[in-house]
Parts: sequence; structure tokens; C-alpha cells
Amino acid sequence: MAVRVAVAGASGYAGGETLRLLLAHPEVEIGALTGNSSAGVRLGTLQPHLLPLADRVLAETTPEALAGHDVVFLALPHGRSAAVAEQLGDDVLVIDLGADFRLQDPADWERFYGSPHAGTWPYGLPELPGARAALEGSKRIAVPGCYPTAASLALVPAYTAGLVENEAVIVAASGTSGAGKAPKPHLLGSEVMGSMSPYGVGGGHRHTPEMIQNLSAAAGEPVTVSFTPTLAPMPRGILATCSARAREGVTAEAVRAAYEKAYADEPFVHLLPEGQWPATGAVYGSNAVQIQVAHDPAAHRVIAISAIDNLTKGTAGGAVQSMNIALGLDESTGLSTIGVAP
Amino acid sequence: MAVRVAVAGASGYAGGETLRLLLAHPEVEIGALTGNSSAGVRLGTLQPHLLPLADRVLAETTPEALAGHDVVFLALPHGRSAAVAEQLGDDVLVIDLGADFRLQDPADWERFYGSPHAGTWPYGLPELPGARAALEGSKRIAVPGCYPTAASLALVPAYTAGLVENEAVIVAASGTSGAGKAPKPHLLGSEVMGSMSPYGVGGGHRHTPEMIQNLSAAAGEPVTVSFTPTLAPMPRGILATCSARAREGVTAEAVRAAYEKAYADEPFVHLLPEGQWPATGAVYGSNAVQIQVAHDPAAHRVIAISAIDNLTKGTAGGAVQSMNIALGLDESTGLSTIGVAP
Amino acid sequence: MAVRVAVAGASGYAGGETLRLLLAHPEVEIGALTGNSSAGVRLGTLQPHLLPLADRVLAETTPEALAGHDVVFLALPHGRSAAVAEQLGDDVLVIDLGADFRLQDPADWERFYGSPHAGTWPYGLPELPGARAALEGSKRIAVPGCYPTAASLALVPAYTAGLVENEAVIVAASGTSGAGKAPKPHLLGSEVMGSMSPYGVGGGHRHTPEMIQNLSAAAGEPVTVSFTPTLAPMPRGILATCSARAREGVTAEAVRAAYEKAYADEPFVHLLPEGQWPATGAVYGSNAVQIQVAHDPAAHRVIAISAIDNLTKGTAGGAVQSMNIALGLDESTGLSTIGVAP
Amino acid sequence: MAVRVAVAGASGYAGGETLRLLLAHPEVEIGALTGNSSAGVRLGTLQPHLLPLADRVLAETTPEALAGHDVVFLALPHGRSAAVAEQLGDDVLVIDLGADFRLQDPADWERFYGSPHAGTWPYGLPELPGARAALEGSKRIAVPGCYPTAASLALVPAYTAGLVENEAVIVAASGTSGAGKAPKPHLLGSEVMGSMSPYGVGGGHRHTPEMIQNLSAAAGEPVTVSFTPTLAPMPRGILATCSARAREGVTAEAVRAAYEKAYADEPFVHLLPEGQWPATGAVYGSNAVQIQVAHDPAAHRVIAISAIDNLTKGTAGGAVQSMNIALGLDESTGLSTIGVAP
Repeated sequence: MAVRVAVAGASGYAGGETLRLLLAHPEVEIGALTGNSSAGVRLGTLQPHLLPLADRVLAETTPEALAGHDVVFLALPHGRSAAVAEQLGDDVLVIDLGADFRLQDPADWERFYGSPHAGTWPYGLPELPGARAALEGSKRIAVPGCYPTAASLALVPAYTAGLVENEAVIVAASGTSGAGKAPKPHLLGSEVMGSMSPYGVGGGHRHTPEMIQNLSAAAGEPVTVSFTPTLAPMPRGILATCSARAREGVTAEAVRAAYEKAYADEPFVHLLPEGQWPATGAVYGSNAVQIQVAHDPAAHRVIAISAIDNLTKGTAGGAVQSMNIALGLDESTGLSTIGVAP
Repeated sequence: MAVRVAVAGASGYAGGETLRLLLAHPEVEIGALTGNSSAGVRLGTLQPHLLPLADRVLAETTPEALAGHDVVFLALPHGRSAAVAEQLGDDVLVIDLGADFRLQDPADWERFYGSPHAGTWPYGLPELPGARAALEGSKRIAVPGCYPTAASLALVPAYTAGLVENEAVIVAASGTSGAGKAPKPHLLGSEVMGSMSPYGVGGGHRHTPEMIQNLSAAAGEPVTVSFTPTLAPMPRGILATCSARAREGVTAEAVRAAYEKAYADEPFVHLLPEGQWPATGAVYGSNAVQIQVAHDPAAHRVIAISAIDNLTKGTAGGAVQSMNIALGLDESTGLSTIGVAP
Repeated sequence: MAVRVAVAGASGYAGGETLRLLLAHPEVEIGALTGNSSAGVRLGTLQPHLLPLADRVLAETTPEALAGHDVVFLALPHGRSAAVAEQLGDDVLVIDLGADFRLQDPADWERFYGSPHAGTWPYGLPELPGARAALEGSKRIAVPGCYPTAASLALVPAYTAGLVENEAVIVAASGTSGAGKAPKPHLLGSEVMGSMSPYGVGGGHRHTPEMIQNLSAAAGEPVTVSFTPTLAPMPRGILATCSARAREGVTAEAVRAAYEKAYADEPFVHLLPEGQWPATGAVYGSNAVQIQVAHDPAAHRVIAISAIDNLTKGTAGGAVQSMNIALGLDESTGLSTIGVAP
Repeated sequence: MAVRVAVAGASGYAGGETLRLLLAHPEVEIGALTGNSSAGVRLGTLQPHLLPLADRVLAETTPEALAGHDVVFLALPHGRSAAVAEQLGDDVLVIDLGADFRLQDPADWERFYGSPHAGTWPYGLPELPGARAALEGSKRIAVPGCYPTAASLALVPAYTAGLVENEAVIVAASGTSGAGKAPKPHLLGSEVMGSMSPYGVGGGHRHTPEMIQNLSAAAGEPVTVSFTPTLAPMPRGILATCSARAREGVTAEAVRAAYEKAYADEPFVHLLPEGQWPATGAVYGSNAVQIQVAHDPAAHRVIAISAIDNLTKGTAGGAVQSMNIALGLDESTGLSTIGVAP
């Protein structure tokens, strides 16, 4: 019997990508699609790439509209998920694509989001140590941020294996869909094409505490993170260039061995052969993660670089992967490691 | 039992897209992958987006390598398919993604390609009147050119319904993948980003006789075609802006009715609701065709605009769709109408 | 003594480009910069590329702010220029970059803009027959639309020389800056990158009557125009692919001769050598127009293709060129035919 | 009397940009243009954006062709400049845009370029401490690499002021023109649009020793540099995200003060107001450098980010600026701080 799924926030990029993936999921039946200002609008107008759902009309995001589903995806602005989740029964699997339930430390939440902390849910990055166990059978899942997904998958094996010092430097380039669909002047095509620019520099980006949380857990002690996000002239993709000071005696071979071990059995994380480097274009629309590592003996650093699709593995794909685990389905069901290229 | 498929020319864009689609096809088993200069190279190096095939190594394109398959896709440079096809048995379904067997008139071939004509195979554009019957059970298929696919689907209903005069003006913008993977200075990213330019102007493009062939068949008499292709700063997609002089008394309602009738039952051709216009971004990676029509009474013209993905519906998707028909499978098997957007 | 110039609407793309050009103009002193919602904001925030003016602060667009200048450029939303112009003295040269004073026929204006017609000013496309005489000494100039600039320069010589029938088909691709800086969802970088789409199809675009006006004047009788604008994934540039049915007996040589004659002495219009085609990338930031023509004997059409920078020759460059003529300066003063490429 | 200038290597991107700037230089007369495989070709074919030089034909790069000029720019592949320079008299100002004479330590050169070291010329980054004095009256100038220009301008003030530890982490995104005009598969528009990817990771990029040289000179002791270049989907621009561990007690105020002091009188380096961040789009085609700094107390790092146009300030603009100094002209002659945006 099909799993009946609703998507709240179906008009935005995260909601649209969730629907794109659910349409290819063999165990799922797509139920209610809801929106806020777009309630009453045809999906074909809002998401013209989802032809099979073109004639569906968005309902208002209410408890009634979302009732009667096995799974509800919340693709809402930050801070809005708690109120909706409360109204859904404990027997419904609620998957939050927003930030509300990602952070463990309420102080972190309050500092970066400026509102009371709503709680912490099992964290939907299955590749982290211990994450799968927490997701199995869970009825609540917090999907990680797109940057933390890319950066954590790049650096966690180095921390788990004790190869690097507790200071990480992360510079990541993101496609513009990461900034959402609400029209703002600096996100106009005229502004972003042909230009790269940073934002949230110096520790101000909200994904910073989430990265610290993941890397510190892997290291077993606090890790500092210098994170600089940049906006790149492409619709999708994150390229995360991550590095940390190598511990004394670390070699290129030890680094490679640690990553090979960490990702040998992972269905979505692909450590590239030596000499090949990740490219976001190769994971366009795919749930795959491309990773490559290097040891720079002159600079005493381990460099780990990952490429993901921010909307797929970085948002909706990670969400579906976690849903599969929570529901006891095969983790890869409905998810592809094949990108659309060129 | 799975259909065993080989792809000759697996290193290029057409071959790569064919493999991307075949990987999602439930009835197919991917057999030999062959190349010319890239024989001996890992597919993961050449097509890093096709992770499930990353460790496959290309063989040389020889009769031995291609033997033992039910279907062979030829994604070769123009003029090379005939020699390979000859060596494959009559019981093998050979699908040529090149131009060799598209044209009916040997004189057209010789004028535009400068070599002796190899013959004419059933034409793999199932949406054309009579095309499906010719494809069913066929062992040879000529896949249409990408521009003729877009332009013919846009204009054929107007000609079939007798709405327009026998002179068509077609201006199409194509993504750069249509120009292939062989590195040429004018195809460098530095040259194409931020720039649009025409080529093959004034009747010189090789797809012109193919368009004339399709539109004339629909009209029942010779149609002249003024075709201008332009190179657009995007990797994929064709937007074809087509028009023809409206016959006396034609109305907007008559135009719309003709297109509604023509495409009512087509699984891949989607006539958009009035007020919505095609966008190549909405069919990125999809086999769908978006079409919209207008009647301009002041200019006395019918305008029909189509958007396709040049590599999917315009090449490999059209090929797989035709393969499905030839093999007696459901025509949509393994093909999606869902684009990757934004 | 320097010409003192004010720019009303300095925060938008047309205003910013006007300032970019004026900064390089040796006879000009930049006076008041005004805005509406952006009054009080540093120009460095709004136009970070104009470093020499970074510390200037925008004033409100009032008669007082604009008083005391020799020239006032109006880069305002359509329909707003008349009220401002009225308050400026008859001795001030007022150059309207908006549409308000371009059209001669009030009925055209009312049909396309839905408000009463404000009047007709001398038309700032100096390359049109007779245009320079009307601009010399004029105190009012209506700068042409970007599409009409590109299309008229492409087709007028064919009409002036009597080479083509009175029906033109124009398909033009424009960079996104043509749509302005006001944030709208379909103009987001995520939406436009990787996608092409048409708009205003079937005669609905407001630049259509302006094209008809220019081509009909050249032809000496009414010309019908089928105009389809498309949005291309680039910030700047218009590529206009224009064609019209060739008159009986017209040859490629006659076409080329007509264009060579028309543009032999024009400082900004460059008829390319045979075999080379226009590219918008080659006129990026330049006031140059690249043109090439072809005769397609099979389709009985003359094809004329132009490339311009929509913000330079298509807006602010055309405005400065016309200002030079009106003020009796050398027409090319401060204007460049050198593009920024690649 | 005009300075007579020749450009060897006029067909490539560095040569084309040099010509674009020289065309706007009031003291210069453009003499010989030479090429290798492109000798005999019209410049209009090779550099269609340089309309005023369209009819010039490239000569072969020989001593005869280059004789009789006051200044010769060498825009040649790495390793070719020494042989040409030797044949030019000591009274000719030779400006090498290649790498041949940038490095001081022959061992660095040999390790990264694999050939004997040709020597060291005065370094054309005038903003470095002491650089101007070495350039004044010099007859030989080595133009810096594009990445070292961006990274050094970002970090040198922090080292000069003793604010940071001797380990720098630099991640830079470059437009594709930095990779040159020779066609290679990974530089095709189809490959680069929509994709970001790193290269030369782990200390392998040839610009690394040049950065170490500049930062170590500023620090007064050896600085280690972890440098990761990435290829971004844009034709021009470098965004360099640079950081180094803050020394004990360093504050945001101290950091800002150091940069304000360093760049107060620099005509091309623009420290942005607090709250505004560099964007490569704002320096498109301009010789300006945008810089912003931050102190991240949690991560104990100073972050300095610069944006340049890799072809202008990063190559040809830096070359012309250095030429001006060497010839005793005003340093800014012919150079603009106005970008082409959007």
C-alpha cells in the first residue's frame, strides 16, 4: 500500500524539488499540496517542470489539508514548522526541510535565529556516525542545511579518524536556488550572472553552528569553523572547499585510507579516483555526493572538497533518503546517483 | 528478459544522454559501450555524472564489440553510421542518432552533407502523422535532428489543419551541447557565456531540408523554410519560435483547436494553458515538449513556439521513445516528463 | 565649459548605464542624481560598479533637484516622464529614456500603454534617414526602445532600398537587464540561467508599434511586423534576427550593396565582413552595432541580423549619442565601439 | 609624442585585453600586433570586440616585427618570453604578462614549471610595499599572476600590520578566461555553465609560490599558503576568499584600521564600506579592486575578500598601470575604475 505524502510549501524551490523526487518514488502517493500566498494557484503555473502535477491546485496550509497523510514534508520559511508540526499527530512522519529542529543547543538557535528554540529532532544526514539508528522508525526528522551537508560529508571522516586539528576553514560556492524563490534585487539574473560574491562572512551565516555541531561530534571535542558562503552564477549546486590543519605525521595515504573506509558502503557518497575532482555539474539533479581529498605537506593542511546538488542531496534528496530509513524502505528507493549533464 | 543494448559513441553528449536515460529504463540491460579515441578510458572520466557506470571502460567500436545485443544506438559523427550499421544483423534494432538516414531525397543529402546518400530509415518522431506505424517492429530507426524535432512539433499541426501558407520562418535558440563535445574556440565557456550569436544563416544549416521534408509532408505540398539557428548561453535546450502566414479567415480559436486536437493524446507534447509560454528550463532533462500558439491578426501570422531539451526529446529521449515503439513496449517506458528546475 | 547633466532615476539599470557613459564623457559634469524610493541612499550601494560616484547620495526627483542643469536624462518608469519634463524649462535639453514620447500615433500609445498620449519628441536613432536633422539643436529627445533600435538598424536599409516586401518577422533575444531592476520571480537568476522563454508573443509587446513606425517610414508604406521577444540567460545584449520576403529579382549582391551604402559612414554601425556573424558578446558595454545580412533564395527571404548592447546602444549610449548631436558636439564624444570580451 | 607599443600574442585573451585598454590610453599609439598560428589573420576575426582595430592583420612574432617600439607587451605562453625579450634592446620597455620572470627563487620556478629559470624582473603589483620604486624607470616588468594579484592585495595589509599568523588559506573562484583561449574539453561552455569545480588542489597550482613570495615579504618571515583555485561559470572575475589565524588580541577595529591605512591613497584598491561585500560583477572590465575584511572571533581568523577582473587588474590592467609608472606617466592614465554592470 502506497505511502501517502503531503508537501506543505509546494510553491518554493525546496517543495518543488521534493515533489520532483516523490514523483519518481515507487512507494509514494502524492496527496495534499499546500501553500500560503499561492493557495488556489495551479501547480503548473508555479512549477512548470512538474508536468504530471500541472493541474493540481494548492490548498491553504491548514491542519485539515494536511490530515490523513503518512508523511508530511514541511518546506516552510524558518521558524514556521513548529506550529504546523504540533498539529500533526505523533503517528505522522513529519520531515522538516527548514532549520527549526536542527540545532541541539538552544543558545545557538537563539543567537542565530533570534527566537525561542523549538527543539531538536533526529538529524537527517544518514552518513554521519550514528545517524541511521536515530532515524529508523522516527516520526520526526530535521533535514540538514545544504551547506552543512556538503561540509560535514567533506570533513567528518578526517575528524573521525583524528587526522586534523580542531580548526576548519570552509569556503563554499552555492547556486542561487539556495537563496530561495522570493524575489530580491541581488538575486536577479542580471545581478548574479557573471558575478561571484560572498555573504554572511565572519561567522554570521546561520549554517555555521550546524557545521560546528557536526564536526565537533565527529572530533569528540569542540571544533572551530571559519565559514564563508559565496553566491555563484548557477542555479544549483554547492562546491565546498574545506580544510583543516593536518596533525603531525599525517600522510596523503592515511587521508585517502580514512575516506575510503568512511564511504566504502555509502550508496550516495562517491570518493572520486585520485586525479579527478568534484564538479557540481556532475551531480546536477542527483542525490550523489562527489568527494576528493588532498594532503598539502607544505601548507600542513588536509583539503577535502565535496560537490552536491543543494536542492537534491542538500535538501529534498536528503529528506527522501531519511524518509526511506524512517519508514524501513531501502534507503535508495526513488533516489538517483545519475546527474543531468552537461 | 531484459533488452540488451549497446551504445557506440558513448563518450559524447548524445551517447552520454542515451546512457542516462537507459539507466532509468526498467526493461534494458546496458551492454557494450564503445568509442573511438576514447577506447580504453573509464566512463567515469568521460561522463562523471553517470556514477553507476563509472567503472565501465570503453571498447573500440568494432562489429565484435557490438555483437550480441538486441539494440544498438549509434551516436557517431555524421557519415559514420552506415558502415557500422551494415555489419550489424537485420535482426538487431539499430537506432541512428546521426543524420545519415533522415532525409528522403538523396539530392538534399548530397547538397548539405557532400557525400553519397546512405538511404532512408523510418523516422523517429512518433508524433508526426503516420510515424508510429512505420516505427512499430522496425529494425532501423533514424532519430530526427534536434531543431527539426522542435520546429516540426511546433508547426505540423498548423499545416495539417491547413491554417497557414506554405512559407515558414523559424528562429531557434539552442544550448551549446547541440554543438557537441569536440573542443572548438567558439564553443569555449568564455565565448558563449553572456553572448548570443547566429550561424548557418540563410538556408545553410543541415537541418533545413529535414524541416522542409516534415512540414511539406504535413502540408501536402512544398513548404519553404527560412531557418536561423542561434547559439544561446546555456548547456541544454531549444526554444523554437516558428511562424507562418495565416490563411484567410483563420482565427485564434481555430488555431488553438487544431493544436488541442493534434496533441490531446500525446504523452510527451504538452500544449500549455493560454497565457503561459514555453521555457527551456522547464523541460531540462525531460522528454516533454512545451508548446504554445498565438494568432497575430495585425501581422497575419500564426506563431507557434516550442521548448525541448535538445539532448533528451531532441536526441536521446526521442531515440528511446522510438525504441520503445519498435520493441512493442509502452512508448513512455523509462522516459519522464519531469524537468529538473530551477 | 562643461555641460552640466542630471540623471533622474539613477538607481536603475538605464540610469546606471547613463552614468557609466557620462563618467567617460570629456565634456560633461555630472550634477544631480535623483531617485524615488532610493532617495537618500549612497550610489555606491545601488551601483557598486560606479566607484568614482560611490559617495554621492541620491536626492528626491523634484524640480528643485533637477534645476540648474543643461541636460536632464529621465530614466523613469513609462508614463512618468511627461510630468517631470513639463517642470523643466524649454532651454534645458530633456532626454527621455522611457517610452512616453516615442510614438507618433496617439492611438498606438493608448492601445499599448493604456493612458493618454503625452506627445512626440524627436527620435534618438540618428542612423535613421532624416533623424540627425531633427536632433540637431533639439531640446527634447525620445530615446528609442532597445528592441526597435536593434530591429530598425537591421531592416531599414532593406526597406529604404526597396528590396523586401512589407511584412517583417522579427525574433529577438534580450539579456535580462532589459526587464529592469525591480525584482520579479521570473527574473530571478535561478529562473533565467539555463533557460530561454518568449513573452509578449503575437503582437502584444509595446515595442511593436515603434518598429512598425520605423519600418513603415523607411518603406514609404505600411509594414506589418510579427515580433517575438525572448528572454535569454545573459545580463546584456540583444540579438535581433529579422527577415522579410525578398522582392522579385533581388540578389545577395544587391542586399549587401544596400547595407554597405547605408552604413558606410556610420560611426557605430558595423556591417561585418561576409562570413562573420554578429555576437552580442562582441558589443558588451559598447555603443557599436554589428550587422550581417543574407539572402536565402530557396526561402525567398532577406535575413538581417543585428547585435547590440541593450543598455548601451539600446538605451544610454543611444541617448548620449543623441545628446552629442543636439548639443553640437562630435557625435562619438565619450562613446566607444570597443566591447568588453570575452 | 605618443608612446609606440607592440603586442606579441594579440590573438589570446591577455593580448586582447591589453589592446582593449591601450585603445583607451591617450598617450599610446598601437604598433605591431603579432601572433604565432594566427599570423596573417584579421584581428576582427580573432577579437571581434575591438572594432577600431578590426582591419589590422597579425604579423609573425619576430624581432623585426617587434622592432621600433617603445614598449612591447609579451602575452605569450609560459616559458616563451625570455627568448623574445633577449632580442629586444635594453632601451625598450618589455612587459611580460607570462610567468617567466615573476619568481625570485629559481628552485620554485623549476619545481612548478619544469624548466630552467629565466630570471626575475621588477614585479608589477604597484600596491605592494616598495613595488613602485622598483618599477619607476624600469625597462623590464613581470606582471603578476591573476590569483596572486587578488590574494596578495587581500592579505598583505594583514601581514604588514602583524595581525595574523604565518599560515594563510586562500580559496579563489575564477572566470574561465583565466584558463585561456586554447580549446580544451573541460573549458567548453557546455561543461562550465552551471558547474563549479576545483583544480590544482593541495599546493599544485603554479601561482602558489608567487603568493608565498608576496605574503612572506609582507610578513618578514615565511608564510605557508594553502591555495585552492576553482573554476566558476562566468567569463571574467576572481573572487578570492582569504583568511589567516588572528594573532592574540587582534580586534575587528584593528583589522579595519590596517586596511584603511594601507589603501587610503591607492587609486585602484577600494576598501568597501562596512556591510558591503565585493562582487566580481562590480569590477567587470575595470581595473578596480574591491576589498572587504572581517574578524571572526569564534574561529580566531581574519577574513579578507577581494574581487578583481582577472583580465584587467589581474593581467592587462596591472600591466598598463605598471607601464605608466615605468614611463613616468600618471599611474591611472587610460585605466578606469568603472565596471560594466549589470
